[in-house]
Amino acid sequence: MKKLKLGVIGTGRIGKVHIATLVQSVPQAEVVAIADADLNSVEKVAKAFGIKTFFANYRDVIDHPEVEAVVICSPTDTHAQYIIEIARAGKHIFCEKPVDLSLKEIQGAIEEVRKAGVKLMVGFNRRFDPDFLKIKQLVESGKVGDPHILKITSRDPAPPPAEYSAVSGGMFMDMTIHDFDMARYITGSEVTEVYTNATVLVDPEIGKAGDVDTAIITLTFANGAIGVIDNSRKAVYGYDQRIEIFGSKGMACADNNYPENHRYFAADGVHSSLPLNFFMERYLESYANEMKIFCEAVINDLPLPVSGDDGLQSVAIALAAKKSYLEHRPVLLSEIF
Amino acid sequence: MKKLKLGVIGTGRIGKVHIATLVQSVPQAEVVAIADADLNSVEKVAKAFGIKTFFANYRDVIDHPEVEAVVICSPTDTHAQYIIEIARAGKHIFCEKPVDLSLKEIQGAIEEVRKAGVKLMVGFNRRFDPDFLKIKQLVESGKVGDPHILKITSRDPAPPPAEYSAVSGGMFMDMTIHDFDMARYITGSEVTEVYTNATVLVDPEIGKAGDVDTAIITLTFANGAIGVIDNSRKAVYGYDQRIEIFGSKGMACADNNYPENHRYFAADGVHSSLPLNFFMERYLESYANEMKIFCEAVINDLPLPVSGDDGLQSVAIALAAKKSYLEHRPVLLSEIF
Amino acid sequence: MKKLKLGVIGTGRIGKVHIATLVQSVPQAEVVAIADADLNSVEKVAKAFGIKTFFANYRDVIDHPEVEAVVICSPTDTHAQYIIEIARAGKHIFCEKPVDLSLKEIQGAIEEVRKAGVKLMVGFNRRFDPDFLKIKQLVESGKVGDPHILKITSRDPAPPPAEYSAVSGGMFMDMTIHDFDMARYITGSEVTEVYTNATVLVDPEIGKAGDVDTAIITLTFANGAIGVIDNSRKAVYGYDQRIEIFGSKGMACADNNYPENHRYFAADGVHSSLPLNFFMERYLESYANEMKIFCEAVINDLPLPVSGDDGLQSVAIALAAKKSYLEHRPVLLSEIF
Amino acid sequence: MKKLKLGVIGTGRIGKVHIATLVQSVPQAEVVAIADADLNSVEKVAKAFGIKTFFANYRDVIDHPEVEAVVICSPTDTHAQYIIEIARAGKHIFCEKPVDLSLKEIQGAIEEVRKAGVKLMVGFNRRFDPDFLKIKQLVESGKVGDPHILKITSRDPAPPPAEYSAVSGGMFMDMTIHDFDMARYITGSEVTEVYTNATVLVDPEIGKAGDVDTAIITLTFANGAIGVIDNSRKAVYGYDQRIEIFGSKGMACADNNYPENHRYFAADGVHSSLPLNFFMERYLESYANEMKIFCEAVINDLPLPVSGDDGLQSVAIALAAKKSYLEHRPVLLSEIF
Repeated sequence: MKKLKLGVIGTGRIGKVHIATLVQSVPQAEVVAIADADLNSVEKVAKAFGIKTFFANYRDVIDHPEVEAVVICSPTDTHAQYIIEIARAGKHIFCEKPVDLSLKEIQGAIEEVRKAGVKLMVGFNRRFDPDFLKIKQLVESGKVGDPHILKITSRDPAPPPAEYSAVSGGMFMDMTIHDFDMARYITGSEVTEVYTNATVLVDPEIGKAGDVDTAIITLTFANGAIGVIDNSRKAVYGYDQRIEIFGSKGMACADNNYPENHRYFAADGVHSSLPLNFFMERYLESYANEMKIFCEAVINDLPLPVSGDDGLQSVAIALAAKKSYLEHRPVLLSEIF
Repeated sequence: MKKLKLGVIGTGRIGKVHIATLVQSVPQAEVVAIADADLNSVEKVAKAFGIKTFFANYRDVIDHPEVEAVVICSPTDTHAQYIIEIARAGKHIFCEKPVDLSLKEIQGAIEEVRKAGVKLMVGFNRRFDPDFLKIKQLVESGKVGDPHILKITSRDPAPPPAEYSAVSGGMFMDMTIHDFDMARYITGSEVTEVYTNATVLVDPEIGKAGDVDTAIITLTFANGAIGVIDNSRKAVYGYDQRIEIFGSKGMACADNNYPENHRYFAADGVHSSLPLNFFMERYLESYANEMKIFCEAVINDLPLPVSGDDGLQSVAIALAAKKSYLEHRPVLLSEIF
Repeated sequence: MKKLKLGVIGTGRIGKVHIATLVQSVPQAEVVAIADADLNSVEKVAKAFGIKTFFANYRDVIDHPEVEAVVICSPTDTHAQYIIEIARAGKHIFCEKPVDLSLKEIQGAIEEVRKAGVKLMVGFNRRFDPDFLKIKQLVESGKVGDPHILKITSRDPAPPPAEYSAVSGGMFMDMTIHDFDMARYITGSEVTEVYTNATVLVDPEIGKAGDVDTAIITLTFANGAIGVIDNSRKAVYGYDQRIEIFGSKGMACADNNYPENHRYFAADGVHSSLPLNFFMERYLESYANEMKIFCEAVINDLPLPVSGDDGLQSVAIALAAKKSYLEHRPVLLSEIF
Repeated sequence: MKKLKLGVIGTGRIGKVHIATLVQSVPQAEVVAIADADLNSVEKVAKAFGIKTFFANYRDVIDHPEVEAVVICSPTDTHAQYIIEIARAGKHIFCEKPVDLSLKEIQGAIEEVRKAGVKLMVGFNRRFDPDFLKIKQLVESGKVGDPHILKITSRDPAPPPAEYSAVSGGMFMDMTIHDFDMARYITGSEVTEVYTNATVLVDPEIGKAGDVDTAIITLTFANGAIGVIDNSRKAVYGYDQRIEIFGSKGMACADNNYPENHRYFAADGVHSSLPLNFFMERYLESYANEMKIFCEAVINDLPLPVSGDDGLQSVAIALAAKKSYLEHRPVLLSEIF
């Protein structure tokens, strides 16, 4: 089997997820070098996964002669720059979401990728979740008919530290962005308008940091459908990820995912297990699928399923959602671009 | 609407169920007279349901000039005699299960019914439960294909008093008899052999009374299918009534029935309600359906869906099950008749 | 049992539902007189349900000496006037929703009811649905904690005739009004702001009549919670009625309701039955519960669970929803009153 | 991480499953040599999984100096002999089920293992399935109370070739043996008596080969519980693997396993996906768990969760089941030993 030789920049939470996935579950991949400014951390990760080459400087990964493609897992504000550097080095790119908080920066990076003729895929892993893939197939097969109403429920088990909000761009940019991408993916249509009703109900510190933790976001799509996303930073029962698409011919929905399917009938009621607790468990399979598809596509020069433009659009919707929240009115996407 | 004028003999537990059903939910019925040896009890029931005529002597119901049909809810050992008397009075009969504990008595009663040309229906109400009706339809439509394996789970929330066993004929005759009828009904085939593995795990008093409280009963059917019934006198989570039929083309199953369908997700798990607690709640609709069908059939001279022979067969299977238990071996139905 | 003697005005669709329920399932009720301008129709209904007295003129019901309480099932534009007339006649009132399309008219009617010292209950039957009652109980017991997000899905199997929109006040007033009441009921809080994203996707004729058929309505509550209702006039799979309440301690949800619970496993997939088709089946039990509670409360002089003010608030939210749709902006309830 | 160096004998269906699992999902394992009489086959497998050393002669694996433990995946009639040879070579053993068709042979092999002081684990992988593990935990935690009734449903999607029956020992020995082990595992008690009702309904060729394809097997346990297993060689809807344990304090059950959890609501019903098709998909995780536990236990000299005696007992029950079928009577386990 032809293997793709990969470098990874960033060995924080998502970096570790990708490295573990690539090493353990993607036979088409070989991780040849990794980098992180925190040399201590990168060394530990390298040892844990049997990767021989590691650096403190990300450039060393890009310049490594064996590296054919680079996976960007560094902080968001470095993404656009790294994309440009990797593209200019003539190597392929997998970049975590969001690409950047600025549309202009993203557009600049995409332009460099285009010029360099390399491939760029953005990390919307949920598109490769078996449940959501099935929903997408039902829409594409015509079984749902014309989409009328899209509903996404997306709730985290616990909020990140309040200070994270400043860095991440806030809830819409770091959490809901997955739902914005999913909304476009499932309906197969662009979002044209956003209205946000958001508030702080979980933790006042989040509010003090200028962010929200609970939201209902209404979407209008170019194809006439309407949609709604509901978010919370804290569901005491764990990670809650559901999709429903209602159309002229039927409705398809995907429920939460559970570690096993037992039921226990006792004198006080019927009981079953909580959903899988967080994204590393729930989306394990999607991370592996995503990387397999990326490697296959690079190896065989095939088109990628998530483009730079997909990264751009989801950030634009997040910006519109934030603007709608701040200005307390529906916001057209055309106001953002 | 033409109404059927009915008399009811016996105002114990099942008698009250039928009277309530007839008065409140069967527009085709008019209860004109009821009887119970316990005059105090029958008077209370009469008042509660607005029935003007009540007697201590069952003969008064049979002889009542307005009564066109009689519902027998008295103790089992009176059934055969009452059937004969009602038939000779030229009136139609609805008789609770079991018809009698002796096949010979039942055959004698059926013969009198035949001679008198009246109608007789036996109270296997579960045939009219919406869930089980759906399973029967799936079998009859051919969607299940040739039946291979039938599974019935039937568990009560709590055992009757141990002394009840002697009167009732024991678990196979008072409880499993419903499952024996259901087995014949769903498969559309006669039982040819029975093997019983039964024991006392719920209450030693039941064992002392010569009865069992937990059983697995294996059945062989004339059409080649095999089946199994599992019974318990005590499920702490309530009434448990399920059916599964597996065949060459598919499998159809009916789960328990619940008072509502909520789910509650808390930090310690997912919770929902217990099944409907006992037969009066679970089979409410089936009792009404059964009596509507009986009244309609008598009024319009139509065939009845549960015959005297159905009553006979289920008692025969119960006798075979008991014999199998006592002799610790598979027993042919042909040994019983 | 003490019975309440009732008159019913209006024998259209909902009138028939209430009469059937009162006659067949509410032992506390006796329907003594009914009226409908269409004498032919009222006569048929009277015969079908064994009601001896019927009129073409609604006043004859109000003035009927035996009538203690009147159920108003006539067209919406007559409700306020009839309430006033019945109140002045010193009789109790059950009025179908919406009470009126004008807040002023409703307030006037409520004032007359107050002066007359009679009881008034508005027909939000869904509050008495077993599934939704359970959700309410979980909220009230504190198990959900502070409410954060309320979600209601409410879809009809087929739209009413397009011309109905003009008479009914449109989708928000005739269909969503139930959901507005449910939103207030489940959260135990008033709605303070509404934003409507609505469109015409089911039938262009509905749009020509100035109405919508598909909507997502975002709500803000006085207690800080937020909520969303999604509506469609046409779900090809039947009636779709679901509620979910998410709070600081957990989430409670009620799924659709089904005629039975079978599953059929075939070579091409697992199949089960569609939900109960429409409100007459789905909410059968809630109609009976509602009328029992009304009769009990009148007979025993108890407070009623749905007040005139409940009727007023739901109409105000419907007006705000319509205004939000027309002006394409969030609308405060304070703008409506 | 300390790795266990393993050899594998036999590269047929189950051999490939174990090799793939060890190579891809068990970081504690290193497969250093494999053997199969079919040199062509073993070479292919070696290449596919990057294993450098392969042989036609199984002895070469046993004698390979690096091999610390051997996984036996060869035909059943070689198991006992290979166990003895590996034990005498002082290496640890993982042996596929059934250990042998003869109790005497198994007892002899166990004795040699004991003398050699090596470890032996038998491949009852289903004990490590997440659903069934959960059921086991509920029993062990006391939540089920005293076990009363155990129910196992186990149906294959399609029968093996009829000629396979002769080699495999027939349905009870190659298929039901998993259920016999599960019955002992879940109840924590030995089987004392078996009654088999079995027949040929799937394929007459199976009957001609002296085997059955459909069975209901009733079990009696030493702790007083009773149980039932239902088997079919052909479920058109795919692999069907369910467990239910009913006790004095409650009931725990595990349903089938599905590839994803979508539901599709159309005008003709509600539809969802079939269960995972066969053991390689359904039990994927259990195979990995089983091998991780085996490697960990050998590396750290810990006790193994499935012993040689577990292998012996399940074969004894299979022999009793066959005897019961042939002699048409309940058979005591004490008759077999």
